[in-house]
Amino acid sequence: MQNELELIEQHKVFDGNQRRYRHYSSTLGCVMTFSLFVPDLSRWSSPPLLWWLSGLTCNDENFTTKAGAQRIAAQLGMAIVMPDTSPRGDAVADVSQWDLGQGAGFYLNASQPPWAAHYRMYDYLSDELPHLLSNKLGFNGPQSISGHSMGGHGALVMALRDPERFCSVSAFSPIVNPTEVPWGQNAFQTYLGEDRQNWRQWDACELLKDYQGKAIPMLVDQGDSDSFLGEQLQPERLAQVAADINYPLTLRIQQGYDHSYYFIASFIGQHLEFHMKHLQRA
Amino acid sequence: MQNELELIEQHKVFDGNQRRYRHYSSTLGCVMTFSLFVPDLSRWSSPPLLWWLSGLTCNDENFTTKAGAQRIAAQLGMAIVMPDTSPRGDAVADVSQWDLGQGAGFYLNASQPPWAAHYRMYDYLSDELPHLLSNKLGFNGPQSISGHSMGGHGALVMALRDPERFCSVSAFSPIVNPTEVPWGQNAFQTYLGEDRQNWRQWDACELLKDYQGKAIPMLVDQGDSDSFLGEQLQPERLAQVAADINYPLTLRIQQGYDHSYYFIASFIGQHLEFHMKHLQRA
Repeated sequence: MQNELELIEQHKVFDGNQRRYRHYSSTLGCVMTFSLFVPDLSRWSSPPLLWWLSGLTCNDENFTTKAGAQRIAAQLGMAIVMPDTSPRGDAVADVSQWDLGQGAGFYLNASQPPWAAHYRMYDYLSDELPHLLSNKLGFNGPQSISGHSMGGHGALVMALRDPERFCSVSAFSPIVNPTEVPWGQNAFQTYLGEDRQNWRQWDACELLKDYQGKAIPMLVDQGDSDSFLGEQLQPERLAQVAADINYPLTLRIQQGYDHSYYFIASFIGQHLEFHMKHLQRA
Repeated sequence: MQNELELIEQHKVFDGNQRRYRHYSSTLGCVMTFSLFVPDLSRWSSPPLLWWLSGLTCNDENFTTKAGAQRIAAQLGMAIVMPDTSPRGDAVADVSQWDLGQGAGFYLNASQPPWAAHYRMYDYLSDELPHLLSNKLGFNGPQSISGHSMGGHGALVMALRDPERFCSVSAFSPIVNPTEVPWGQNAFQTYLGEDRQNWRQWDACELLKDYQGKAIPMLVDQGDSDSFLGEQLQPERLAQVAADINYPLTLRIQQGYDHSYYFIASFIGQHLEFHMKHLQRA
């Protein structure tokens, strides 16, 4: 199955196509699925690509079914790839916690047993899956990245670690400073071990403190009725670091919105328009 | 709990509210949930109401999470109520079939044991739930109705049986002639018994043959890649009866679309605009 890409589901939507693929990932050592929206190719021949990283407990289908993003992406002529949130399968380490193990890969490369064997989502998303999309499906154009919660953390970290790759980055309700909040500390201790110095490279606030790269336009939306806001998310930490180094962050606090996909649906159109503006300049 | 309406979930979405309610239904003899989208009431003080009836296996949340309808309803100033598809609970008759029993009420009043005790979805949606929405939530304005598959059947039957109630009716991939297709025959035999004369009052094609009521504007969308099209749906049967009596039906065959919510999402905006046009004339 190596290097094979199997189309396992396909639906016409807004004149484009919502697809689901399965492939063996040599990086992760397991079979993975991902979803892909492709706009009407008779109208948009080389659509730019947005990466969407989902949050805790999600797989590649939550954003696909709940965000209503295809309506806007079809109008703009944008493709969206939606990877899974962790390695998967009976051979892959797991625990009976919703915020750790399968469904909770935190978009990093684990160093600790038993996690290090499969939990290499950063390498999968930086290297293997982009090459697959390029080689097998022809996506060689400009890219941007977005995500929600744990996936917002993933999007910010991926952009700040590899700024030449992305035209823009956005996030909904991201975990901006995982080394300082319970979700992140729990995951990082488990996947990365006790040495907190090794945690910093997977933390958007820490990366931004020492940032020397290109200033990628960054949009963050956060609902003020989000029950995780005060303990887990704390976007003001990112705003403070961005202000300290004069980084172009737009942080919007959206009144009355919570952590759900209803919040994402309400503002995903504005995020796609934000990304499209920067993708078109590439 | 009689006559009590319990708000069990609420999310801000597109400046409006997505809510979920629970109540005891005396018509059905069980506890029911329904979902309701209300647009921003500071902008739209008396929104008209669209009923959405879902298909086999669904509950009140499928349309809520997957159709992306709130984006358009919020722009138009329209409320949408999404009931469940059958009575529910351990005391309610059921079978281990996905197209019969709980999740498959077919929007009729059953006459056969053990179904007759609870399966009275027509009365629930014609009488009890509208009164609850009027008395408890203030929805007294004009109404329209739509639905998908089994819910498309429900929408057409409810409109044709009670034409003064609705300004317009639409359906996605409806079962238009249940007395002549396997899904409908199986359900009607089970819920209504062997006498096919009793089936006719729950069949849109049969109702339309003898129709004497107001000509409610009717829009039907059907994907031509729908795997149920040839055996279960056959919209040409409805088109033939409508042509025979010169009824104002618009039937659109949408190329490449299937039976999924991706099809609904792609055209729900046009359906809401169709309904709004007729609701505003009321």
